[in-house]
Amino acid sequence: MKISISIVLFTYFLYYNKTIQKMLKGDFFMEDVKVERLSINYKTLEEFKRFKEYGIQELSMLDELQSNMIENDSESPFYGIYYGNSLVARMCLYRVDKKYDSYFEPPQDYLELWKLEVLYDYRGRKLGKQLVDYAKGFNIPIKTNPRVNSHGFWEKMGFQKVHYDVQRDLGENPLIWLPEGVKEHIEDKKQG
Amino acid sequence: MKISISIVLFTYFLYYNKTIQKMLKGDFFMEDVKVERLSINYKTLEEFKRFKEYGIQELSMLDELQSNMIENDSESPFYGIYYGNSLVARMCLYRVDKKYDSYFEPPQDYLELWKLEVLYDYRGRKLGKQLVDYAKGFNIPIKTNPRVNSHGFWEKMGFQKVHYDVQRDLGENPLIWLPEGVKEHIEDKKQG
Repeated sequence: MKISISIVLFTYFLYYNKTIQKMLKGDFFMEDVKVERLSINYKTLEEFKRFKEYGIQELSMLDELQSNMIENDSESPFYGIYYGNSLVARMCLYRVDKKYDSYFEPPQDYLELWKLEVLYDYRGRKLGKQLVDYAKGFNIPIKTNPRVNSHGFWEKMGFQKVHYDVQRDLGENPLIWLPEGVKEHIEDKKQG
Repeated sequence: MKISISIVLFTYFLYYNKTIQKMLKGDFFMEDVKVERLSINYKTLEEFKRFKEYGIQELSMLDELQSNMIENDSESPFYGIYYGNSLVARMCLYRVDKKYDSYFEPPQDYLELWKLEVLYDYRGRKLGKQLVDYAKGFNIPIKTNPRVNSHGFWEKMGFQKVHYDVQRDLGENPLIWLPEGVKEHIEDKKQG
């Protein structure tokens, strides 16, 4: 008798624990998640400082805002996810014109994706996946140049390594995503 | 009397300590350091595995070697420093043709530099500087796209940030080095 009560209690404890963990991880609130295009303003630029990959691009945007080269709340190439008032995940997308395409067959407009990043406390909630899915929604090929240790994530997202070409790729490790009907463009192999 | 002996001993200790530290850091053996162009062979490719930035480029070189697309001991775009038999520092250099130059004024051939890396145990011996100095020796401009946290090093090496242009630079944080008589090329500003 004592044993069976213990088993019931223990099972309940396990279940309860898992539920709490799920709630803490935010799996219960997934429907509320929305990807938005970010405007350039002082609030956005302040929030960008919390991301690791803060660089010349952000500084240049701040500079343009301060010197009135662009208007407050102009559209930016950044997309992000808010939790309440806080930006917790972001990426940058830029549509590269067909005439510069050396990755896809037939040559076409594609998206360059970079600075995909989820703030540390918000990882494990598939926010990265939500952003990538959003980018895929444009239904044109995507190219990204991820940091070396994030290849596992990109493979799960359906991205594949390109055939490296030193003259084109230089210091990059490009990964591409192909919508239906698109192939990788493979150059006659150069040395390197 | 006691005090002055103590001072002499303490000073001697400080000096001795500094000398030992210098020797440990290898400053005494600086003259032996030589930058060499690396050949592509199985030994080199095995040594590359000890570097953090091992990626598609190395895998592609291995592939080409294995499938006889390139010969053993072909010239590679890599340069490195050996200590005895071990490769302890390396970088990759590629000469970009003038017709692709959008960074310098007047447009000209320049070097793209990447994968500059010194193995952990060999840092603090200025091996990184030796490699960069070697690259500067070609006396054409250099462009690099370093990881965000290494800007201090590049500034010490005389590199400067470019004026960021989203269409050209996308996810990069380019830094450039200008030899005498060369200026940065600044495009009419695009939005972003």
